[in-house]
Amino acid sequence: MAEPKENLQMEKIVSLCKRRGFIFQSSEIYGGINGFWDYGPLGAELKRNVKELWWNTMTRQRDDVAGLEATIIMSPQIWKASGHVDTFSDPMCDCKKCKRRFRADQLCEDQGLTLTKDASGKFVLPPGTKCTNCDSTDLTEPRPFNLMFKTYVGPVESEDSVAYLRPETAQAIFAQFKNVLETSRQKVPFGIGQIGKAFRNEVTPRNYTFRSREFEQMELEFFIKPDEAVEAIHGSVVTVPETGHPGEPQPNWGWQAWHQYWVEERVRFYEGIGLSRDTLGFHRQTADELAHYARACVDILFKFPFSKRDEKGELKGEELEGIAARSDFDLSQHQRFSGKPMSVFDEELRTAWGKLPKEKQDDLWRRYYENRKKYLTKTGVADEAAQKQATDDANALAKGSYIPHVIEPSAGVDRLILALITNAYTEATKTDDKGKSETLYTMKFHPRVAPIKVGVLPLLKNKPDLVKKALTVRDLLRPWLNVYYDDGGSIGKRYARQDEAGTPFCVTIDFDTLGEKPELLDTVTIRHRDDGRQERLKISELLDFLLSKVR
Amino acid sequence: MAEPKENLQMEKIVSLCKRRGFIFQSSEIYGGINGFWDYGPLGAELKRNVKELWWNTMTRQRDDVAGLEATIIMSPQIWKASGHVDTFSDPMCDCKKCKRRFRADQLCEDQGLTLTKDASGKFVLPPGTKCTNCDSTDLTEPRPFNLMFKTYVGPVESEDSVAYLRPETAQAIFAQFKNVLETSRQKVPFGIGQIGKAFRNEVTPRNYTFRSREFEQMELEFFIKPDEAVEAIHGSVVTVPETGHPGEPQPNWGWQAWHQYWVEERVRFYEGIGLSRDTLGFHRQTADELAHYARACVDILFKFPFSKRDEKGELKGEELEGIAARSDFDLSQHQRFSGKPMSVFDEELRTAWGKLPKEKQDDLWRRYYENRKKYLTKTGVADEAAQKQATDDANALAKGSYIPHVIEPSAGVDRLILALITNAYTEATKTDDKGKSETLYTMKFHPRVAPIKVGVLPLLKNKPDLVKKALTVRDLLRPWLNVYYDDGGSIGKRYARQDEAGTPFCVTIDFDTLGEKPELLDTVTIRHRDDGRQERLKISELLDFLLSKVR
Repeated sequence: MAEPKENLQMEKIVSLCKRRGFIFQSSEIYGGINGFWDYGPLGAELKRNVKELWWNTMTRQRDDVAGLEATIIMSPQIWKASGHVDTFSDPMCDCKKCKRRFRADQLCEDQGLTLTKDASGKFVLPPGTKCTNCDSTDLTEPRPFNLMFKTYVGPVESEDSVAYLRPETAQAIFAQFKNVLETSRQKVPFGIGQIGKAFRNEVTPRNYTFRSREFEQMELEFFIKPDEAVEAIHGSVVTVPETGHPGEPQPNWGWQAWHQYWVEERVRFYEGIGLSRDTLGFHRQTADELAHYARACVDILFKFPFSKRDEKGELKGEELEGIAARSDFDLSQHQRFSGKPMSVFDEELRTAWGKLPKEKQDDLWRRYYENRKKYLTKTGVADEAAQKQATDDANALAKGSYIPHVIEPSAGVDRLILALITNAYTEATKTDDKGKSETLYTMKFHPRVAPIKVGVLPLLKNKPDLVKKALTVRDLLRPWLNVYYDDGGSIGKRYARQDEAGTPFCVTIDFDTLGEKPELLDTVTIRHRDDGRQERLKISELLDFLLSKVR
Repeated sequence: MAEPKENLQMEKIVSLCKRRGFIFQSSEIYGGINGFWDYGPLGAELKRNVKELWWNTMTRQRDDVAGLEATIIMSPQIWKASGHVDTFSDPMCDCKKCKRRFRADQLCEDQGLTLTKDASGKFVLPPGTKCTNCDSTDLTEPRPFNLMFKTYVGPVESEDSVAYLRPETAQAIFAQFKNVLETSRQKVPFGIGQIGKAFRNEVTPRNYTFRSREFEQMELEFFIKPDEAVEAIHGSVVTVPETGHPGEPQPNWGWQAWHQYWVEERVRFYEGIGLSRDTLGFHRQTADELAHYARACVDILFKFPFSKRDEKGELKGEELEGIAARSDFDLSQHQRFSGKPMSVFDEELRTAWGKLPKEKQDDLWRRYYENRKKYLTKTGVADEAAQKQATDDANALAKGSYIPHVIEPSAGVDRLILALITNAYTEATKTDDKGKSETLYTMKFHPRVAPIKVGVLPLLKNKPDLVKKALTVRDLLRPWLNVYYDDGGSIGKRYARQDEAGTPFCVTIDFDTLGEKPELLDTVTIRHRDDGRQERLKISELLDFLLSKVR
């Protein structure tokens, strides 16, 4: 359970977010709707900046990633292939006395208990589990509740017209893999990135915007050659240490090196927007936690005030992003369910294979065969059919064809926004000459994500020359940066307003700008948000200075 | 009906969009899902550029507009207040013989007939209407089909948990009006802008991406003072001619001037991204067409190949954007349904009112009263209650309070993308020395929206010095522009590829760049897409040159 101090901090953050227009409750005038949150003017800018940075870093700045923007409603077949129709559910139970409904795992956790499974795999409440509303122990057994929002497409409501709001953006990337491959001149290894809304009908949304029912994801699916193909081409597969950045991608990397590469690239991304390594946590999933098809998954965590603590009393953190090595599971599933081939042909592999000694061929063939057979068996294909299919697959490998494996860095936008807000939040108490004290809030956003980059402030509102000059400065900067022009109230008040908005720089136009001190003509004061430091800069140097800070 | 030539052009555009990765059918590997379209790598960039330009132009570049990003699923109360639950429907009828389902108005239109209404307001098929599938005239009478996608929020499917996917983004802006006003330091007149997905369960999606079930909108709600308030403050209300841009906003503008201002601002936007005035059409809604609360609405049309023709045989065009003067209807409805006040207090009005002669006060009071009463009566408030409420409202006006009126420029992203693609599409036949001819396609996008801004091409792939230099140029430009690096195939082939992608500039790095002709050291060839013109430019001048063209 979070400490009272941390609850208080969360409350203050929520309050500032509302007061300054970062985050509002959706449909607030109608009493709200549980699990849905709107972004106000500052929040919308913050979110746009984060998404734009991700898109730039992950797609535009790279030759080896293409973008995609798919629909939220897709063919329901996609969710059968992905397993979401059958298994994307949370265990849910009801209190028979007060009729309150709970997510069974959370209900247990809140009482220091753990939800368990019986021999047949069914969830069972541990003895003594109580309703946290009325203390009754008369609870229904947990049953699965599918988290996908359901709707009907077209004018008839029937089983044939059922569709789902996507619970993740990833599947569209797999479904469009071939179209993108064929139109983008990419070759494996390459990735497809997408940003977009996703929906999960959480039984109990909680922790402010952290777990909401409508949210946004930034996902990359990075397609790589299976290790057997890399080994056939390059003689061996390079693996890298499990810590530290492995450097520029190499042709002889296997899945493990690519996975480690993406973990470190993503950490660099977070560091680049102000989340230093010490604010983050890492969780490498254990064999027990991993999905049957996954080879590894590292979660990047952020230490929120509401995060649980470990045995040593340290905040453990909550997941911002998971980077999973998902083998060739996803494309294989879509190949099986759609009947459309998802394999790629690799000329280099075909040539290399032909030159391998027979034992090497046999060894690679057998290992590939085993992996394919394991996948097929695990997903319910009968033994004989699985053997036949795996044989075909291994024969195809020998001829240069394979289904790519995938590394998936999958980030949640809204939880990242909440992490950035939490990380930026600072308060300080200022006492004036008369002993009266007030609390000042500063949102110390990294300039790259700050909603407003610069405040432009004429010293006085009622001096036309100052105002005119200030508007010139505003118009000089505005095509390049988000500028907030403010002429209302004392300079101190205006600084404080920009501090709360997280604006890293304020530019003040005063009489020296107009040449009262001739040597200061056409210079302005730049004030730095985090330490209040002020310096004098020529207007002609202003744009370059600011661009160097915010890009 | 579209001419065969125009059908053919549409087919070619659809084919190029698929082949080059602009637009794919959603869930194509599963046979698709009717009315849903994905954007491939080039389409996703094009769409991002358009949305970014709208956001910049409409919010960041203006002091008087704030942004918002609200959820797709909101309280269902919002759609009761807006009228969508009761009236957002299309007339639908079935063929009793072949069971095909139609949108009744489209079914009639396709046969040169017009759907009519009987005395009670019910839709009636004109005599002789046939099923276009099986020619039967045995059709059901039209009945309303609500176009909102329905779902359930939370673990119980009941009337209490019904929610809708928003059919437009506008309502969230009205619902959050007070929150934005209170947190953004804006004062009327000001606007709130939003970009986001919306959903309509069209009975028969058609015309490629033009009418789809999932689409994106860019909407501004610009809140203004009621004319009576403007007149009280400024003595009179300025109106402006119905054509031409009225210039910078003035404090004494009434709704008509603001409306005309936004029509012209929006036309400028389209001109600024390559849709010249002659590609657009305009439709000023007649009194019959306007909603009861609307004072005017101008639709900006684009002439698509599938557009209908008028009596003179000219393409009429299809709606890209509607700019509506919606009076104070929207905020008034939310005030009534939520019980939360939507009025603003205007100190300037209160002061001015006190100084007005009694007759003027009475005149303004009465006109405001009449407008409010008309709204209340039209929306079903009983006469006595409407009189009382309108009296209260007019008394509030006299004390400086009113519900703002609104001008709404509402644009569809996807139809704009389709307009840009249609407008950009050109083909030319080239015949070589041997008499062999091929068709070349060029997408003449305005550089501001072009998915790729510049192709960087080393003359030869197998000369390390050329490649190294080309990569330097790529890395110089990439932080600022979307660059495509291409070293595959002849220069001619690579130019042709970029022409099809709509890339306005290609930069070629050749031996002169490396100093073979010393005077050309560190210069490159820039090739212009639309006329094939080439010029030589210093690498050091390249970024500024390109930025001046694409921004």
